[in-house]
Amino acid sequence: MNVLLVYAHPEPRSLNGSLKDFTIKRLQAAGHAVQVSDLYAMNWKAPLDADDSLGRADNSRFDPSLDSKRAFEEGLQSADIAREQEKLLWADTLLLQFPLWWFSMPAILKGWVERVYAYGFAYGVGEHSDARWGDRYGEGTLAGKRAMLIVSAGGWESHYGPRGINGPMDDLLFPIHHGILYYPGFDVLPPFVIYRTGRIDEARFARICEELGQRLDQLQQTAPIAFRPQNAGAYRIPELTLHPDVATDQQGFAAHLM
Amino acid sequence: MNVLLVYAHPEPRSLNGSLKDFTIKRLQAAGHAVQVSDLYAMNWKAPLDADDSLGRADNSRFDPSLDSKRAFEEGLQSADIAREQEKLLWADTLLLQFPLWWFSMPAILKGWVERVYAYGFAYGVGEHSDARWGDRYGEGTLAGKRAMLIVSAGGWESHYGPRGINGPMDDLLFPIHHGILYYPGFDVLPPFVIYRTGRIDEARFARICEELGQRLDQLQQTAPIAFRPQNAGAYRIPELTLHPDVATDQQGFAAHLM
Repeated sequence: MNVLLVYAHPEPRSLNGSLKDFTIKRLQAAGHAVQVSDLYAMNWKAPLDADDSLGRADNSRFDPSLDSKRAFEEGLQSADIAREQEKLLWADTLLLQFPLWWFSMPAILKGWVERVYAYGFAYGVGEHSDARWGDRYGEGTLAGKRAMLIVSAGGWESHYGPRGINGPMDDLLFPIHHGILYYPGFDVLPPFVIYRTGRIDEARFARICEELGQRLDQLQQTAPIAFRPQNAGAYRIPELTLHPDVATDQQGFAAHLM
Repeated sequence: MNVLLVYAHPEPRSLNGSLKDFTIKRLQAAGHAVQVSDLYAMNWKAPLDADDSLGRADNSRFDPSLDSKRAFEEGLQSADIAREQEKLLWADTLLLQFPLWWFSMPAILKGWVERVYAYGFAYGVGEHSDARWGDRYGEGTLAGKRAMLIVSAGGWESHYGPRGINGPMDDLLFPIHHGILYYPGFDVLPPFVIYRTGRIDEARFARICEELGQRLDQLQQTAPIAFRPQNAGAYRIPELTLHPDVATDQQGFAAHLM
């Protein structure tokens, strides 16, 4: 299996750095091929801007979507973007590893998503009609591949529980799981989350590695989160709301789970 | 009133650029003082890293929290960070204006939050004991100030409705409203959201300006979102879960609303 690990932490000598090294070794020992996009080490350009689309007319108005579309179609994307797209096409499984900063992914990783997820590659794919609203949410360029988050959080697990003050971790991660990974086609595995990272001694680190190792060993067997595909009948098109007879009386993120 | 507008769009000749200009004029015409942090125009550095904390020993291990704490306490923050903190302290009201990209704020704005929200400034503030868990979620450095999002989205309003495929807009914005704005003390006003931005003719643009103008005129009178303060009895400490007799049988983001 080919695994792409996209990793976002500024310090190699951190918990995240150690777990990144552990992950690579574990996967390689199992015979998998691993590529790593270490975004801080690569000095990844975070902001999406006009420089991402080559060959633009001087002083023309930059449109993030339309310029992305043209650049993708005409092979005029910035080289760093095209390279990451190649890695995604190569991969059978994508791992995104990051510390939860302000309840989402670090800016450098968000900028990887924004720039690599070109129009025609990750969105704006497929037919838009009365019957279909593009190949997305379960279909798309990356369909058939799997993805999993490896996330560290400073707070306690209870702070992220069903009635925890920060909001439930599953809901905080929904925009990533559903909106960033399921959207272009990935099957999304339950995340691996480490809490209370300020209190990790050697024994706990060993337990975390043991648990993470098991998750890595099971990447191909683990059941994905059962999101509802967009174009299989659950949603009205073009309103893209759930049909009244689907998840009746439910609303919010959880209604999009089967 | 002093208003800080933090704005994140790469193209001045965009809908967002036009609304930014409109906002500044409207506020100034009403007699308010306005400062603008135009993050793309400022070439804002998005990734949080060791360069944000001056005076670090060469080759020392970078800890995002502890280095931020030391730099904030000792006046050794990168100058761009300190400048934005000054603007926040000056402001009575903060506006964050951005296009919704992949269901959250653009990377460059996320990086503004991560870098400007230093330890001791936006988190790690106040006493941590059995009775209090820091000055946060309704208390903190920025308490007494107001904040509001101005957000544009390409999708339709129904796609972001209670049963819309993208998830409800209020839930998508909860990590920003509650986790980024309410956390350091802001009173958070309901957001101003523009949908279906690909289809805006002159008449619709005029209507949007009319509605936005009313919201700007009412910044000081609008009732904030009624989030529950952390240290006023609704939460067990240190678990930080809602007491059983508060919002009984509720869970998820909505349980944190009074």
